[in-house]
Amino acid sequence: MSSQTPESLADAVLKGERRAIARAITLIESTRPDHRADADRLLEKLLPHAGRSIRIGISGVPGVGKSTFIEAFGNHVIDQGHRIAVLAVDPSSKRSGGSILGDKTRMETLSVNQGAYIRPSPAGRTLGGVARRTREAMLICEAAGFNVVLVETVGVGQSETTVAEMTDLFMLLLLPSGGDELQGIKKGIVELADLVLVNKADGDMAAAAGRAVAEYKSALHLLRSAARDWQVPVRSCSALTGEGIDAAWDMVADFRRQMTENGFLDERRRDQNQAWMWNEISENLLQHLKDSPDLAGDLARLEAEVRAGQQPPVTAARHLVARFLAGPGKM
Amino acid sequence: MSSQTPESLADAVLKGERRAIARAITLIESTRPDHRADADRLLEKLLPHAGRSIRIGISGVPGVGKSTFIEAFGNHVIDQGHRIAVLAVDPSSKRSGGSILGDKTRMETLSVNQGAYIRPSPAGRTLGGVARRTREAMLICEAAGFNVVLVETVGVGQSETTVAEMTDLFMLLLLPSGGDELQGIKKGIVELADLVLVNKADGDMAAAAGRAVAEYKSALHLLRSAARDWQVPVRSCSALTGEGIDAAWDMVADFRRQMTENGFLDERRRDQNQAWMWNEISENLLQHLKDSPDLAGDLARLEAEVRAGQQPPVTAARHLVARFLAGPGKM
Repeated sequence: MSSQTPESLADAVLKGERRAIARAITLIESTRPDHRADADRLLEKLLPHAGRSIRIGISGVPGVGKSTFIEAFGNHVIDQGHRIAVLAVDPSSKRSGGSILGDKTRMETLSVNQGAYIRPSPAGRTLGGVARRTREAMLICEAAGFNVVLVETVGVGQSETTVAEMTDLFMLLLLPSGGDELQGIKKGIVELADLVLVNKADGDMAAAAGRAVAEYKSALHLLRSAARDWQVPVRSCSALTGEGIDAAWDMVADFRRQMTENGFLDERRRDQNQAWMWNEISENLLQHLKDSPDLAGDLARLEAEVRAGQQPPVTAARHLVARFLAGPGKM
Repeated sequence: MSSQTPESLADAVLKGERRAIARAITLIESTRPDHRADADRLLEKLLPHAGRSIRIGISGVPGVGKSTFIEAFGNHVIDQGHRIAVLAVDPSSKRSGGSILGDKTRMETLSVNQGAYIRPSPAGRTLGGVARRTREAMLICEAAGFNVVLVETVGVGQSETTVAEMTDLFMLLLLPSGGDELQGIKKGIVELADLVLVNKADGDMAAAAGRAVAEYKSALHLLRSAARDWQVPVRSCSALTGEGIDAAWDMVADFRRQMTENGFLDERRRDQNQAWMWNEISENLLQHLKDSPDLAGDLARLEAEVRAGQQPPVTAARHLVARFLAGPGKM
């Protein structure tokens, strides 16, 4: 970043220059302390211009056709006059068969579309770290004029909750198979959804997709949506034939309009910002404690004793915190 | 606690003396620092004798007949030769219509049964604080020889998750009404359940209860249980007539046997202990930060700016943590 100040980089991002966007995201992904200071200056400059997109979280089990869907959905959204950024939260992206975004070639037409910006999942071992970088990348893309941001995650672990906590609307893609084959979906994921789409509703699978829609409608009917006065729509679509893709976008637009009018979206974002700050504070503090060389021995011993039920967790915690806050090596 | 050392109190608890149990729980509920030190000594003495109960979480919407169910279930469990402690997690217990345990008179026969120990929800404004005290009260009851611990919560907010995270098995009571009337159940609560019971399956409601059981079976079928190789049973029961209460206890016993054999229960408890320690560390650190007088002004200002989207959460967090760890008033 030597040749460019954060301020000039911010200006280039605001003009929508693609190389600047890539550089800005690389900057916020860096863990070097001096880069972090630059990243803070960059974000402060961009922040007044961010926040004007509709932020969509999207998830689905492997095999659901997520990359094909994102390609069809993204191209449709661009055809409607919008610009779409596609980001990813996938802390395990190093493994094979992970995030689709590790392999842009799977979204051939979208990746070369000037109305789209696709960024693979950032490197990082912890979900918290990956989530932070994705949140910040989202702000950069918004400042660069992308008014639709899609945050993708693979259907594993805690990442869906994390994505739902940083987006306006959480979209879940499901397979038309229904029943037993769906046991692979993690508990609570369906319940995060503001919009459920049964993909691959084409050819031999069309009938099964219809049954799956009915089944999910019935299951979701029992649960209250997190969004205000919103009954979660369950629809089928086919990313392959394009059927239902326009309806999916229309539902997103409906959601945005209704939730803007009733104030829910504004409230959700304020709460998300505040929760994000406290998460950051909490993670920073824990990281300092874990990194404290003075504490390493105590920590390993007490954690093992706590797991084995030989030490009360509260006592162990209080001991560690007291030592951390009193100790000389706390920074 | 002036007349009794933590060690002598522990001895009395181990003998199962009811007044000692009450005193011990009062001690761990105290927020006075000297009491806390005594509580730590008490818990260290009791811990080797704790952990031998089956820990059951129970929740249900108001009106589901939870107090009647706990009374019938508790009496049945005692008839089988066990001793049952009933605790509560309800951070909002001050409001009217809150925890049933605020009003022991609703469990007339159980509350006077020598095989039962009932403790109302501890005072406390935060869920974390209430949860900690309930976890510790559970250890005290176990050390006192109660081999079944029931932790009750009202069907609101985050408290179900908290209860599920401190128990071996989470039991959910539902109304036989089904459909729209059940929209009041929070998202994700059903999915915490290891056992679902549709109560009030008597008289006019018997048929509706049967339909609700079928409906929930179908809905739960789509979701994977958190427990290993466990298909969540959905059954009807009537706390009023007693029908299905014995079956409920049998399912708890089945769960315990299977999850002990396959090692899941041991693993769940180890993970719970470790997570509890880290939660405590995190909460302690946050509490110290929030209480820091040096930080109060910055904190209020930055939090407002973050909510309004005027300040990046990461920047605000880093600023606050750096000031906290460097500042003189950090304790």
